[in-house]
Amino acid sequence: MSDRKEFRDLAEPHEAHEAIASLDLVPDPETVPLREARGRVLAERIDAEMDVPGFDRASMDGYAVRARDTFGADEADPATLDLIGAVHAGSEPTVTVESGTCAEISTGAVMPDGADAVVMVERTTELAGGGDDGGDAIEIRTSVAPGDHVMFAGADIAAGGRALGPGTAITPREIGLLSALGVDEVPVRGRPTVGIVSTGDELVRPGEDLHSERGQIYDVNSYTIAAGVEEAGGEARLYPHAGDDYDEMERLLVEASEECDLVLSSGSTSASAVDVIYRVIEERGELLLHGVSVKPGKPMLVGRVGDSAYVGLPGYPVSALTIFRTFVAPAVRRAAGEPEPATATATGRMAVEERYSEGRMRLMPAGLVEDAEGATLVYPVDKGSGATTSLVEADGVVVVDPDTEYLAAGEPVEVQLFSPEVRAPTLFAVGEDDPALSRLLDRVERPRYLALGSREGLRRLRDGVPDAAVVAGDPGRDPVAAPDPTGDAAPAPAEVVGEWHREWGLVVPAGNPDDVTGLADLVDRDLRFVNRDSNSGLRTDLSNALADLADERGTARREVTEAVDGFDRAVRAHESPARRVLAGDADAGLGLRATAERLGTGFVSLGTQRVRVYANPARADKPGVQALGEAVADGDDVFASLAGYER
Amino acid sequence: MSDRKEFRDLAEPHEAHEAIASLDLVPDPETVPLREARGRVLAERIDAEMDVPGFDRASMDGYAVRARDTFGADEADPATLDLIGAVHAGSEPTVTVESGTCAEISTGAVMPDGADAVVMVERTTELAGGGDDGGDAIEIRTSVAPGDHVMFAGADIAAGGRALGPGTAITPREIGLLSALGVDEVPVRGRPTVGIVSTGDELVRPGEDLHSERGQIYDVNSYTIAAGVEEAGGEARLYPHAGDDYDEMERLLVEASEECDLVLSSGSTSASAVDVIYRVIEERGELLLHGVSVKPGKPMLVGRVGDSAYVGLPGYPVSALTIFRTFVAPAVRRAAGEPEPATATATGRMAVEERYSEGRMRLMPAGLVEDAEGATLVYPVDKGSGATTSLVEADGVVVVDPDTEYLAAGEPVEVQLFSPEVRAPTLFAVGEDDPALSRLLDRVERPRYLALGSREGLRRLRDGVPDAAVVAGDPGRDPVAAPDPTGDAAPAPAEVVGEWHREWGLVVPAGNPDDVTGLADLVDRDLRFVNRDSNSGLRTDLSNALADLADERGTARREVTEAVDGFDRAVRAHESPARRVLAGDADAGLGLRATAERLGTGFVSLGTQRVRVYANPARADKPGVQALGEAVADGDDVFASLAGYER
Repeated sequence: MSDRKEFRDLAEPHEAHEAIASLDLVPDPETVPLREARGRVLAERIDAEMDVPGFDRASMDGYAVRARDTFGADEADPATLDLIGAVHAGSEPTVTVESGTCAEISTGAVMPDGADAVVMVERTTELAGGGDDGGDAIEIRTSVAPGDHVMFAGADIAAGGRALGPGTAITPREIGLLSALGVDEVPVRGRPTVGIVSTGDELVRPGEDLHSERGQIYDVNSYTIAAGVEEAGGEARLYPHAGDDYDEMERLLVEASEECDLVLSSGSTSASAVDVIYRVIEERGELLLHGVSVKPGKPMLVGRVGDSAYVGLPGYPVSALTIFRTFVAPAVRRAAGEPEPATATATGRMAVEERYSEGRMRLMPAGLVEDAEGATLVYPVDKGSGATTSLVEADGVVVVDPDTEYLAAGEPVEVQLFSPEVRAPTLFAVGEDDPALSRLLDRVERPRYLALGSREGLRRLRDGVPDAAVVAGDPGRDPVAAPDPTGDAAPAPAEVVGEWHREWGLVVPAGNPDDVTGLADLVDRDLRFVNRDSNSGLRTDLSNALADLADERGTARREVTEAVDGFDRAVRAHESPARRVLAGDADAGLGLRATAERLGTGFVSLGTQRVRVYANPARADKPGVQALGEAVADGDDVFASLAGYER
Repeated sequence: MSDRKEFRDLAEPHEAHEAIASLDLVPDPETVPLREARGRVLAERIDAEMDVPGFDRASMDGYAVRARDTFGADEADPATLDLIGAVHAGSEPTVTVESGTCAEISTGAVMPDGADAVVMVERTTELAGGGDDGGDAIEIRTSVAPGDHVMFAGADIAAGGRALGPGTAITPREIGLLSALGVDEVPVRGRPTVGIVSTGDELVRPGEDLHSERGQIYDVNSYTIAAGVEEAGGEARLYPHAGDDYDEMERLLVEASEECDLVLSSGSTSASAVDVIYRVIEERGELLLHGVSVKPGKPMLVGRVGDSAYVGLPGYPVSALTIFRTFVAPAVRRAAGEPEPATATATGRMAVEERYSEGRMRLMPAGLVEDAEGATLVYPVDKGSGATTSLVEADGVVVVDPDTEYLAAGEPVEVQLFSPEVRAPTLFAVGEDDPALSRLLDRVERPRYLALGSREGLRRLRDGVPDAAVVAGDPGRDPVAAPDPTGDAAPAPAEVVGEWHREWGLVVPAGNPDDVTGLADLVDRDLRFVNRDSNSGLRTDLSNALADLADERGTARREVTEAVDGFDRAVRAHESPARRVLAGDADAGLGLRATAERLGTGFVSLGTQRVRVYANPARADKPGVQALGEAVADGDDVFASLAGYER
């Protein structure tokens, strides 16, 4: 079905960089008002067109004098000069200072003719009526040299001098210098215009109605890549979504190429849409490169369409953003004249071992966590490229060489941070999905919490990676944590830094139309049930309760669970079963009283379970762990706001 | 003349921080479109209101099947299933997969009812007409488990889950997650509005006409501080200039206080304007603090005016920006919810000794330069606070403790960088002010050049601080450079990395109305002359020429120079004398043929002088030094474009 030209091998990453560098994205320079020049880059040298200051300027409040008249003056033997007038800042002197006279002068004022120095007001005394002809006189109690307390014209910047060079990034200080020169229109490098064409019939712009039943999803790449373009100094332009119709795609790509310096296509995970793009580029432009030996990013395209540069990004958001950052953002920055970010890497040790099978360079999304000594640990984040949540769960990428088969725990690695501002979170915790916890985390600065369930929390705590695990229900055995990332030493007991209780049971439709009274109804009656996944602490307690029921009845546990229609229908989050019930897809779901109250459904209580925050013992003193402990201790308002919660 | 309340002592810096922290600058939160949310800070937690994906989704192109139908299938013994239709991304399935059947499915499409797994297309073969009732069939050559190649509804983000916490900085990745959730209106922290009232009758906004004869100067602080406010996450609002009229100042400050969260006054160096502000704050608000024990910044005010916070900044631009960055920017960032910049410090060793007399904390503007080993050296930048050029010649400040009497050369210090992006320049050179050099420097990336004259260049090179010195005329003796910042070891000879020649002489009015023919005219006739300062290589050659003239005449050199009216009238930059001639203030000035041609004046040649770039021998291999050497070597176009220049 494809007539793709043969690109026998995937290109090497450096070839992709070179192909993109060979494209011209540089826009024409432009002129912006000084007030809007911050963050731009000077397009040309700015020479001073005038002296700054433009006149000999008093740099103290005092009296303008002829220095010679003060020679020899001191506290014991002051000189006395006739006061002939005053010069204020912002006005033209109307007096001339002759020998034996002086003029009052304020800081910033023009030195009057004849004067060559200023005596500070603190070293003078006014003598009313003490002048030769009955006017006022000034007693000068110090001697000054010519030029004292005078800033000469051009002393700061002289006309004709080089003020700023081309390529200078304009920050507040450059704005200050340009202000001093009176430059109010600043010649700056243009921002490359980057068109973004998202492809895929299933995409809907955020804010519009979504029809999940038709398989629609919100378009993640358009706004994400647009923000990345702007971060790199480009100007993003969004084009309407293109399906996989050839004519529509051609029209959009050609339109974008006429209006932009670079066109990016992104968003499609469908082979046919990619085929269509491929054909448009081949027919309306030129394809330089198809596929790069890097994971993610194999489906990357580089070429030209019309007069514009073109790069096709992978469809999955994490892949698209990773490839954008690695290959495209540097080219956008170069075109905008922006420097590479200064501190965009962090070094740390691998928190766990990671193995690689493919012989491709890999851009491994990685998270940062600080160990007890404040040293950085690095762990892989990989939920499958289709997950948008890994966008925010990673702090950067580790570039793993094609020859690397594994990274050992404890091995030093370098993380290319997503931005220079990225820092390890103050708290990294994994565990139960709980609405009280969600609110308590609001009171911790920059926490990272992965709601992967109690069991996964315990598993990761045992590996020693997170700072804490949040566990609902009975953890079975006392949690432990590996003391350091290599995990060689014996795990130590975890510390409890917070605890509360929550009521759980069956969420049923409002009014409980089926008259569900307890677990036995799930086993004995024809009710469609929705369970939680096996990492959930709710599921653990449900299974225990079903086991008790089986014991009561003297039957095998398995018999009981198999009698529940939907016991294996497991969904991921605490509200998910209730939402299935609300949607009419189930008659009962495992959940919390708090959820039932929030969503307005019925609820059949099955018990109360404990939720505990277990700290990695080595990191119990970490400020973020302490902050969560304090949030729990001070969390009465949170527990009071959630039905069925108590400390 | 002042009725100031007595603040007996200057406040300590920490008291100034506390006073500012006690003021409330936090604006109301607001809502912005997702497309404009980058760089903002979330005001509240965002929970997922929907499952992502909202449906069970195929994650491969292939066939939707009942996994049970594939059990046991492999290459040798494939299963064959009737093809009953197709489901594409973005459309609603119209088929139900019963046992023994399958449906074509594309990546991203909704799983049809009945199907629980996807078989990749690569592991199948289409059998046209191979179906039970003559329709097509699909040969399945692998076995799949339930859930294979399916992303279940909510697997990425589940409804009710915590997506992002309050205080999260919104970068492209958060925009991705918000996109996935369909959030197109984002609740963000407001940006504090900061009003800037610049005071001083002498100030003129850049772009307006400047009357230097009246002592007007361009307003540097307004735009500089506005840019600083915006860099810190605030919104700046500029108010018209206020003179030192009480009523006008009161009206402006009250107006600003009604419209802004914080009002800054800045710009005035005049005692009377400061007095007026002081009285307005006392009468219309409250003064918390007057004067801080820090240099610069003694005149700082902190208080309230109306319902708004108020800070009075010093008048000199470098002082104003330094105090703003140190005391005010952190408060603006906090109010905006922005984190402190991550990497805003650099450590290095002092390149020279620096002594302090006053018992005040000092914020010493400092420049960075890299030594031969790439280690950072730090040198003080202090041209007097009135100079705007020190704004761009410093890279940050070193906080020097009040007890510190001196910093020794080689002593380690920490520099608080003006921004995390600041790096040492690639080339740091000092020396002659030369128009060819100015153009050549355009070809070096991020150079720093201080046009302080040949003599100052040689002096600094001898101290070992800059990478190179540019020297015009005969340097007298061979230049040397100290090998390291402590300067203990013997200086080594500098290396010449570039050389050219320039024609110099007397710049006279166009048409040479006084018929000036040479130096003797300056000595013998009544001509007003303008010289260059003694750091200039032009001045050196002029003095030598006058000495030759004296020798010829058998008179004392001093007699000759004293006969030149204006020999001591020294101005700073290469065009300055010519501009004085143009303005009618002088009959002749020391200058270059290139300047005379550029400005359209007359010119009387006195000779040609050599200009040399001398590298610090330890740093001759530094890329920036090499780049300047190459720029000179390749600079024929530059030399050809300037009259009187040749290699």
